Amino acid sequence: MKEQEFPTLNDIRHALVKIKNFVHRTPILTSTAINEIAGCEIYFKCENFQKVGAFKARGAANAVLKLKPEQKSKGVATHSSGNHAAALARAAKVAGIPAYIVMPSNAPEIKKKAVKGYGGEIIECEPNLQARETTLEKVVQETGATFIPPYDFMDVIEGQATCALEFLEDQPDLEIIMAPVGGGGLLGGTALLTHYWDEEIIIYGAEPSGADDAYRSLKAGHIIPQTKPNTIADGLLTSVGVLNFELIKKYVKDIFLATDPQIIEAMRMIYERMKIVIEPSCAVPLAALLANKEKFAGKKVGIILSGGNVDLGKLPF
Amino acid sequence: MKEQEFPTLNDIRHALVKIKNFVHRTPILTSTAINEIAGCEIYFKCENFQKVGAFKARGAANAVLKLKPEQKSKGVATHSSGNHAAALARAAKVAGIPAYIVMPSNAPEIKKKAVKGYGGEIIECEPNLQARETTLEKVVQETGATFIPPYDFMDVIEGQATCALEFLEDQPDLEIIMAPVGGGGLLGGTALLTHYWDEEIIIYGAEPSGADDAYRSLKAGHIIPQTKPNTIADGLLTSVGVLNFELIKKYVKDIFLATDPQIIEAMRMIYERMKIVIEPSCAVPLAALLANKEKFAGKKVGIILSGGNVDLGKLPF
Repeated sequence: MKEQEFPTLNDIRHALVKIKNFVHRTPILTSTAINEIAGCEIYFKCENFQKVGAFKARGAANAVLKLKPEQKSKGVATHSSGNHAAALARAAKVAGIPAYIVMPSNAPEIKKKAVKGYGGEIIECEPNLQARETTLEKVVQETGATFIPPYDFMDVIEGQATCALEFLEDQPDLEIIMAPVGGGGLLGGTALLTHYWDEEIIIYGAEPSGADDAYRSLKAGHIIPQTKPNTIADGLLTSVGVLNFELIKKYVKDIFLATDPQIIEAMRMIYERMKIVIEPSCAVPLAALLANKEKFAGKKVGIILSGGNVDLGKLPF
Repeated sequence: MKEQEFPTLNDIRHALVKIKNFVHRTPILTSTAINEIAGCEIYFKCENFQKVGAFKARGAANAVLKLKPEQKSKGVATHSSGNHAAALARAAKVAGIPAYIVMPSNAPEIKKKAVKGYGGEIIECEPNLQARETTLEKVVQETGATFIPPYDFMDVIEGQATCALEFLEDQPDLEIIMAPVGGGGLLGGTALLTHYWDEEIIIYGAEPSGADDAYRSLKAGHIIPQTKPNTIADGLLTSVGVLNFELIKKYVKDIFLATDPQIIEAMRMIYERMKIVIEPSCAVPLAALLANKEKFAGKKVGIILSGGNVDLGKLPF
């Protein structure tokens, strides 16, 4: 098999044009109060306002739009209990093709409801990775659907990269860009695009200290999978992907950590000062920035707010 | 005393220009999901993103900017335990003049903190209306400060009217505009401006059924003060003001009511679907609309989201 090549700047530009009718061009917000606290100038790219409430809408839309005609009719499949599940179900719905979503039997009702709301077909499995993978395999065999992985997949990375493209088109004077890292789809895509855009712009990742595999992997120079993650940032529990890590190793200058109390404090700050709803994972970059202020002093910093899907009955404050 | 005259369209335009550096031009948001539920096209004017987190910043800024030079040096005073207190303290701070805020001794710490944060001087009093008024009188006598009432005051109404002016400048095809009503500063100002702008546009008020004095007053044709209000919409407990009621009687077609469960449902819908933080009072118009869908079917409806100052530890869901 030929080695896969990363998307070019032109590929990402083309992706943005293609997904335009599928996703929002999200706004950039600022907060004087937070800037004063942080000691720098922060621009928040609000993917919590994105379709399905998360940047995942981009990668899923892009992957569906890049299906070949013979693939389309048979639909798409994935295993996910999070935002990728809803994002893929929605992208499939807009494209008028079926989506098969393998979800652990203990997935929250609200997540299942979101997938069903977009017309996705849910196939339940035991709540462990092996069951998810074998169930997915079976689904793919039976339906002929194309598997769209949540992050370790070129078309998904290309889709997520459109977020940084919009960000820099709208706010070209950023000196630093920061994104959270779980599987690395968003951070990888952001790193790739930003590298093409301007090599002077520093790219940082932000990770919860209770799920710091990307941090440890970056220090070690090779992937160290996450075991037993323990953090409120439930969108960042997964291990970093192979393709994503390659991009992170090449283009991300550093990954900063934030503890759960720091994440909760940053989350509350964003609710109170900016009056917007975000999920805990989304607060990790601001939390990591506030824990490392000296690295950002006086700079223009772009932070990607990754999503806003949170159980309002279980806010940590 | 000469009868007071309401601001003209030109006055309101002028006010908007003058307060421009004091307040945000707030964005207008829409939600496909909410439109589908409501059966109409709703445009939300997001005053929850306003300075101090509420439209009150407009009226307070306008009132401070309209002080005569001899008034300025002696500062401003008011009694309020809510958004007007913070708004006036902030407007005074920006203008570099003192603000004396009479607050009931049982006012929430967070409200006191906001006022202090803007450099306002808090004078505590017993938690009843009479104590508030006599304490304020004393403060005004001792300091020579100018009393800026929270809503029943021309300069404040003129300031609040700038919100509808921005709304219609940015979204000129609205067929209905809806605002919550407590004291009536926002609804009165909105009604006045909208009347000048286009008499065809229908203006509705929205009120909690647990504090429905404006509704009953409008039906009766004269002010019936609110006694014992009981609603989660804690920004709308007060009775409608005299000047405000005059505008409402003239230009507001109807006031719709919403129960607390309806308000909470609408509030949750806005958090979940739009990913923004609002206070309960702010959800009343959407709640009232959803309770009276047939009146809005297929229309382009502008709703003013009045504020976002909510105790996140006490969300009703």
